Amino acid sequence: MVGNTKLDVVIYDTTLRDGSQGEGIAFSSEDKLKIALKLDELGVSYIEGGWPGSNPKDLEFFREVKKLEFKNAQITAFSSTRKPNISISQDSNLQALIDSGVEAATIVGKTWDFHVYRALETTLEENLSMIKDTIAFLKDKGLEVLFDAEHFFDGYKQNPDYALAVLMAAAEAGSDWLVLCDTNGGTMPWEISSIIPSINAITTIPLGVHLHNDAGCAVSNSLIAIQNGCKQVQGTINGFGERCGNADLCALIPSIELKMGKRCLPDGKLKSLTEVSHYVSEIANMPHHNNQPYVGYGAFAHKGGIHVSALLKDSQTYEHINPEEVGNHRRVLVSELSGLSNLLYKAKEFNLDINSYNAETRKVIKQIKDLENQGFQFEGADASLELFLRKGFGEHEDFFQLNNLKIILEKNENDEIISEAMIKVTVGDKIYHTVAEGDGPVNALDNSLRKALHEVYPEIKEMHLSDYKVRVLNGHEGTSAKVRVLIESSNPTNKWSTVGVSENIIEASWQALVDSVNYMLMKKAGLEE
Amino acid sequence: MVGNTKLDVVIYDTTLRDGSQGEGIAFSSEDKLKIALKLDELGVSYIEGGWPGSNPKDLEFFREVKKLEFKNAQITAFSSTRKPNISISQDSNLQALIDSGVEAATIVGKTWDFHVYRALETTLEENLSMIKDTIAFLKDKGLEVLFDAEHFFDGYKQNPDYALAVLMAAAEAGSDWLVLCDTNGGTMPWEISSIIPSINAITTIPLGVHLHNDAGCAVSNSLIAIQNGCKQVQGTINGFGERCGNADLCALIPSIELKMGKRCLPDGKLKSLTEVSHYVSEIANMPHHNNQPYVGYGAFAHKGGIHVSALLKDSQTYEHINPEEVGNHRRVLVSELSGLSNLLYKAKEFNLDINSYNAETRKVIKQIKDLENQGFQFEGADASLELFLRKGFGEHEDFFQLNNLKIILEKNENDEIISEAMIKVTVGDKIYHTVAEGDGPVNALDNSLRKALHEVYPEIKEMHLSDYKVRVLNGHEGTSAKVRVLIESSNPTNKWSTVGVSENIIEASWQALVDSVNYMLMKKAGLEE
Repeated sequence: MVGNTKLDVVIYDTTLRDGSQGEGIAFSSEDKLKIALKLDELGVSYIEGGWPGSNPKDLEFFREVKKLEFKNAQITAFSSTRKPNISISQDSNLQALIDSGVEAATIVGKTWDFHVYRALETTLEENLSMIKDTIAFLKDKGLEVLFDAEHFFDGYKQNPDYALAVLMAAAEAGSDWLVLCDTNGGTMPWEISSIIPSINAITTIPLGVHLHNDAGCAVSNSLIAIQNGCKQVQGTINGFGERCGNADLCALIPSIELKMGKRCLPDGKLKSLTEVSHYVSEIANMPHHNNQPYVGYGAFAHKGGIHVSALLKDSQTYEHINPEEVGNHRRVLVSELSGLSNLLYKAKEFNLDINSYNAETRKVIKQIKDLENQGFQFEGADASLELFLRKGFGEHEDFFQLNNLKIILEKNENDEIISEAMIKVTVGDKIYHTVAEGDGPVNALDNSLRKALHEVYPEIKEMHLSDYKVRVLNGHEGTSAKVRVLIESSNPTNKWSTVGVSENIIEASWQALVDSVNYMLMKKAGLEE
Repeated sequence: MVGNTKLDVVIYDTTLRDGSQGEGIAFSSEDKLKIALKLDELGVSYIEGGWPGSNPKDLEFFREVKKLEFKNAQITAFSSTRKPNISISQDSNLQALIDSGVEAATIVGKTWDFHVYRALETTLEENLSMIKDTIAFLKDKGLEVLFDAEHFFDGYKQNPDYALAVLMAAAEAGSDWLVLCDTNGGTMPWEISSIIPSINAITTIPLGVHLHNDAGCAVSNSLIAIQNGCKQVQGTINGFGERCGNADLCALIPSIELKMGKRCLPDGKLKSLTEVSHYVSEIANMPHHNNQPYVGYGAFAHKGGIHVSALLKDSQTYEHINPEEVGNHRRVLVSELSGLSNLLYKAKEFNLDINSYNAETRKVIKQIKDLENQGFQFEGADASLELFLRKGFGEHEDFFQLNNLKIILEKNENDEIISEAMIKVTVGDKIYHTVAEGDGPVNALDNSLRKALHEVYPEIKEMHLSDYKVRVLNGHEGTSAKVRVLIESSNPTNKWSTVGVSENIIEASWQALVDSVNYMLMKKAGLEE
């Protein structure tokens, strides 16, 4: 069983295991399930879910993942070979792996003699037995086995005979794949292209690579490995992972398909790559690097004057691929033209009939640029943008006005905290004055606003806030820095996002909250017209 | 004049020209002067200062840079070949280049026939004349000339005869260097290693490369170019540049020196690379990527438990180089993925003498895991971790106690917001009851706490909060979700980070704030003992 046989190269994703070892990443098991489904949709062949023996969160993931259905991906569990000088049955990690119920297991084993002596503190012979016993045990249980030869390249350079003995031990025990790892990430490209063919020459078992990015070569080295006959590449979305991370699948996959002409995803899936990359960043709550190859927001952003003027003649002049092939798009920076065309595009989407050349449109563009300078970001907040445009073109009025707002937070000696929000709003000619408590100041505010409006607008009960994000802007001014709040709301038929910016987090949250309610009421009113 | 003759490979920095074409980067001419001096100190051989003909800021830079003294670097100016169908004397860009007073010029010329037709809209013959005329003119003026063969690899693949004719034209006209550019950044590693030797075979003029990162291969491709005989690599600090950026010199330089054993910087300079990388990021006001190879804050940060237990035995087990060789340092992260080893490592770092096997240590580890389950993340908050461990082992007591806290936020009809924080704290047997305003609730809290403590602990005036980050955890519960607050603080001698977690953002901020003040006071008290 070597993955989808229609593919030339098999993609093995380890975002959920090695990716979670990146600094600042802490997935909940629910996060992991969501990402697994997304990766399956993208069409990777393997998803490494975690290490069942290592922590309760991973155990929970494997318990839950069994209930889901996967179209393209095989879920694998990671573990190391059995510990030295014990029998398989005494190894709790391997027992946990079996209990996880996976059909494929990835087993990491020591390949570098130095590691056997220094880290494992055992003999070279015992290490070979550990590898053989573990793989044979799993094959006996009917699992597909991928053997991760840890530090393969470092080991091979220092003691090639032992590194090969390790691979042969794994092969004899029945491993379905031999995965050559550059665990410390310092291997140079010419070492990859000289070593891999010599391994391919001595085994018929398909080879994979698992390469780290400590010298900035993980993506390139993975491509070179494929060029030299490897059938599988392991990596993570956005290159998340221990230290400098793993090979970034978002850079690898397009080069495999578009540059090498080899298939590694099902038909038509490459186009969703940019979205998947952003989705995983959002869940990991990690910034998405603007200049990330292929999928970065700025990957096709053109700034140099010569470039832009040539692009207007032919986009191939300064773009190595068509950005749409990976679901990304071209951007032209510092150009009033691009501002206008973006706006016209959005206005059309909102069914707003605006004229591109009149003064009113230019005024609205200027206002948007001013807001963006202040830290507003409308690309993640379409509902706020639509409200803003409708107001700008005189097509919208708010459904309620705030008279005043007051929040009291109190923490007493018993460490109990009480958050209370009082608001006074006007709807038509009536004033509503309410108070409510909440889990925090923003939740109290939300509760109080609902209490004030539910009599006039009972539909507010159907809507709820499904996500709340805070980003600190111009970070280096401590607690008086500006914050941007993004709120995602939903009701049974719709989902929308709004934004607020202020030095005061409560004010920023209030702006986003008010937009959210106004947007819902506007859509409701539109439907009833 | 081919740079410092003691060097095997010449580093050409274009941070100030190509780097400034990166999205979000806008150097003032003063910024450029500062960076140029820093690069000279690092010991690069060439610094491309800008394009004198393109904008007044670059003109100003060249005017000022003449007044400075450079120990290692040659300052170069960038320009394109003369425009089609005019004489050199009519070309204002080249006149501006001569007027800039530089002793070396980098001239970009079209190498890809498609670009000659589509972008220049001239004939192949005229393009060759433009190249020859321009180089001959500059050589006649006594300048060193570097010829940037734009889109060389794309051009060579589509029309090798013409691409070679371009190089030969530049060579005949007297160019000192032939720099092969991958302008669109989509060239694969094996194309570099197959094309460069064939160019080296037909010219004695030294070759350089200028490679972009659109397929994530710029660093690796540059190394491969050196391996195949190139004597010069062009790149930028941190890989800044158009679209996905240029080859990152901070990743390239250490691999050239440490992996290839070739010299590209003067003696002892490699150690300053991490500092230079951060310095340029600060001036550019761009975030420094945590996982950047060699120089990232997390480049040698270890999270996996297996890794840390092996590192304790020998750091070579999971580090491809000694971090100090590039001026970076090892960090061990404490997280749910890590075990006892990480904690013991930290305890050693904090000079805490703890026994790895006793019940007390295991209790503390369990408490840490519990806190992490609640959303605490100590890997970015060493100061909170140290306080927690000291408290756990009975070695620390807080410097003040909170009696109660109250925050009032008010927004009136004029949209003015007032944030007031009242706190009552006990220090020793004295009670301090203060109120203060702020830009937002957390800032008000910070101000109020300082007001309460500054009489007893005047050193609080020296410390300030330098960064404030908010992350929403388990994001999909709307405004009642948990938030994690990370605060970075500094005083004239130190910098430290603390963390707080709660459903209430004010409570989370308060926790981090209290840790921050306690940590500073603890360090101060330690010094005075």
